[in-house]
Amino acid sequence: MSLDTVLNRIDEDLDAALERLMALLRIPSISTDPAYAADCDAAADWLVADLQSLGVDARKCPTPGHPMVMGTIDGPGPHLLFYGHYDVQPVDPLDLWDRDPFDPQIEDTPKGRVIRGRGAADDKGQLMTFIEACRAWKAVHGTLPCKITFFLEGEEESGSPSLVPFMTDHADALKADLALICDTGLFDSRVPAITTMLRGLLGEEITITGPTKDLHSGMYGGAAMNPIRVLARIIAALHDDSGRITVPGFYDGVPEISDELRAQWDGLGFDAARFLGDVGLSSPAGETGRSALEMIWSRPTCEVNGISGGYAGAGFKTVLPSKASAKISFRLVGDQDPHALRESFREMVRAMVPADCSVEFHGHGASKAGNFDTSAPAFEAARQALSDEWPDPAAYIGCGGSIPIAGHFLNIAETTPMLIGFGKDDDQIHSPNEKYDLESFHKGTRSWARVLDALTREAG
Amino acid sequence: MSLDTVLNRIDEDLDAALERLMALLRIPSISTDPAYAADCDAAADWLVADLQSLGVDARKCPTPGHPMVMGTIDGPGPHLLFYGHYDVQPVDPLDLWDRDPFDPQIEDTPKGRVIRGRGAADDKGQLMTFIEACRAWKAVHGTLPCKITFFLEGEEESGSPSLVPFMTDHADALKADLALICDTGLFDSRVPAITTMLRGLLGEEITITGPTKDLHSGMYGGAAMNPIRVLARIIAALHDDSGRITVPGFYDGVPEISDELRAQWDGLGFDAARFLGDVGLSSPAGETGRSALEMIWSRPTCEVNGISGGYAGAGFKTVLPSKASAKISFRLVGDQDPHALRESFREMVRAMVPADCSVEFHGHGASKAGNFDTSAPAFEAARQALSDEWPDPAAYIGCGGSIPIAGHFLNIAETTPMLIGFGKDDDQIHSPNEKYDLESFHKGTRSWARVLDALTREAG
Repeated sequence: MSLDTVLNRIDEDLDAALERLMALLRIPSISTDPAYAADCDAAADWLVADLQSLGVDARKCPTPGHPMVMGTIDGPGPHLLFYGHYDVQPVDPLDLWDRDPFDPQIEDTPKGRVIRGRGAADDKGQLMTFIEACRAWKAVHGTLPCKITFFLEGEEESGSPSLVPFMTDHADALKADLALICDTGLFDSRVPAITTMLRGLLGEEITITGPTKDLHSGMYGGAAMNPIRVLARIIAALHDDSGRITVPGFYDGVPEISDELRAQWDGLGFDAARFLGDVGLSSPAGETGRSALEMIWSRPTCEVNGISGGYAGAGFKTVLPSKASAKISFRLVGDQDPHALRESFREMVRAMVPADCSVEFHGHGASKAGNFDTSAPAFEAARQALSDEWPDPAAYIGCGGSIPIAGHFLNIAETTPMLIGFGKDDDQIHSPNEKYDLESFHKGTRSWARVLDALTREAG
Repeated sequence: MSLDTVLNRIDEDLDAALERLMALLRIPSISTDPAYAADCDAAADWLVADLQSLGVDARKCPTPGHPMVMGTIDGPGPHLLFYGHYDVQPVDPLDLWDRDPFDPQIEDTPKGRVIRGRGAADDKGQLMTFIEACRAWKAVHGTLPCKITFFLEGEEESGSPSLVPFMTDHADALKADLALICDTGLFDSRVPAITTMLRGLLGEEITITGPTKDLHSGMYGGAAMNPIRVLARIIAALHDDSGRITVPGFYDGVPEISDELRAQWDGLGFDAARFLGDVGLSSPAGETGRSALEMIWSRPTCEVNGISGGYAGAGFKTVLPSKASAKISFRLVGDQDPHALRESFREMVRAMVPADCSVEFHGHGASKAGNFDTSAPAFEAARQALSDEWPDPAAYIGCGGSIPIAGHFLNIAETTPMLIGFGKDDDQIHSPNEKYDLESFHKGTRSWARVLDALTREAG
């Protein structure tokens, strides 16, 4: 059987595949920090060369930001698009890492072998599972089972400023029968998943300015308005006592999930106590009366991702600072309109800033939530293929994170997105000591071979 | 007249005196940051050598922290103690300085010539006015007019952890007829001042921990408690809508000023609009119904001096952080008890931390306010001497800052403190681009010569 031959090839080639992933992980492609622009470029070059070695006519496509990698290889079956991103999150606080985040290593842990390093799970390890499945297929058969267009982004971790203009300009090239996206997770170690609900994201940075310069808190304290005090009042006002978000109109377009979906989620046996217990918490912090799974999959949120102002070094400094800033993000669901909410948020903040102070806003991305139709037969074929590889059957699930690309495929390239990934909750993506399980990488690669086979047979 | 000869000598020696000050300013003696410990030591050595050149038996006295400089020189008149501090504040944010903070320079500005550099006003420039006055007196007369004990501290900007134990151990040596302290300001460019009311200071650092590690705000947002949200609620709750501080018992021991003092302060013609306008503000931010002068001289405050948590770098990072911290200080007046208020503050904070989060406290200094008796004849003599040097008569004023040493002289060494200094409101102490007016330095030195002469004659 040809699929088995491909799966065997994947097993035999695992060490070499890991070597290739390590090479990609060593490139510190942090897209949000301009200091790493050359490294983002180097990661794109690496992927172009790797795809070319498979026979893909890959090339680096310039954008006003970091380049896209694109390329197509012909094949007999349906036309599939594959999306992943080669950029990674910043690594600070660096002192909480147990090793250099860009000197990756295979580590033995009590839970199994892991690949440790920034980007191991998000998203370099994930995107390489698909490329490695293609490589094995090509090695065994000399061709791929279908036509595949690769589309790899370098700005996913920094709000994707170039993505929509680029996709609009290349909408024809990106149009396919199905868009495979590998940037999500398993439901758990036994249950693979196709993600069909994604939260949207609205990012805002606000800076409050009080006095025109830093002051001595002895000389001016009491008389001069402190911008940290203003900022704290704004942040404190964003949630009410029941955990609801107070931005006017915030819940417009937030749907209740159907009884059917609620029943399916209840059947997953999600262990909220363990989910929170793994990170030292015990009580769900969201709206009262909602389950933890609702809080992360189907309810919107407001989080402060960073705050700064005044003196934060060692010791004490009695400064009354001129400025204080916060980075705030909203996760959106259903039909919440990010642009309307941005305006509503800004209006609410402006109304809380005293006459003496000023506020500046800086937007960081605005994407709607995605809710994807799974009625096409390809979904059931892929779900079966995943179920064949993993211990338990695959599930359709929600995801708390934001993957705006999924909506863009639908809206710009008129192509249905299918989100399959092999990450785990404890991968520590965006955090120190990020890892990707060796099992995720190995069985992920095998899963893609099965999915390619299933989609080709389903279409044929 | 011998005083005139000394004043002439000060005028002639001004350039050389500035050279000496520049040498001291070049030493980055930042006491709060352990990285500068050797520099603090070097500043102490420099002062020991300079005092020895005047014939003072100066020496460096070790403490568990930075050393004290002590030394006495005999003279015929009363025994005066002189206090200043050789340590300085940190310099960040460094990018807001127009020059290297430790490469001082004389600059011409629209308001006159200034000495620009960290410590120029606080307190190296100020302490050198007294030493230069002594140097001129010695040069003219071969002796000083009275016995003087020099006592120079190196931990004033970092909470003075070694001060009380050291003063207790050396209480006899520090006992004098009067303790002159040069760490305060003029009332304005025309009106010199003796400061008779000082606010106390209570410093607290709080760190809220939520999850045990940084999380992805997509994966955990909504379900996991964000420590920045907890911290913001605490800070927002510290003031009520009328600007009063809500820590239970906070106003215990806060007196109303006397009608007499209020009338004197009203007579100073303090221009609150200009005071705030100089730093870009217009409305006094303290308790409603209080004047700006009350807010900074006779009312207690609560300020957040620094806040940090999550990602504060360039761009955006959707992290849900594990920790958030704030440095908070309270300025105290009257009989407010810093130790009781520390406990009350901590209890209030603990009650606001959700069960899932924890809080750690770190204290940074605790000193009571000072209110000093001015009935001794030396005060009127010094006030007249200052009035002789400056355009308008000298005033008794309050000061918003905290100079715990003044209370320690009274309580530990049983010596009345007299606070005279020549700083100005726009000196930007503790801030970028700190400066000391050349006029403050020059007329300050001349003022001390006049005060030494007046105190000697008054005692004689």
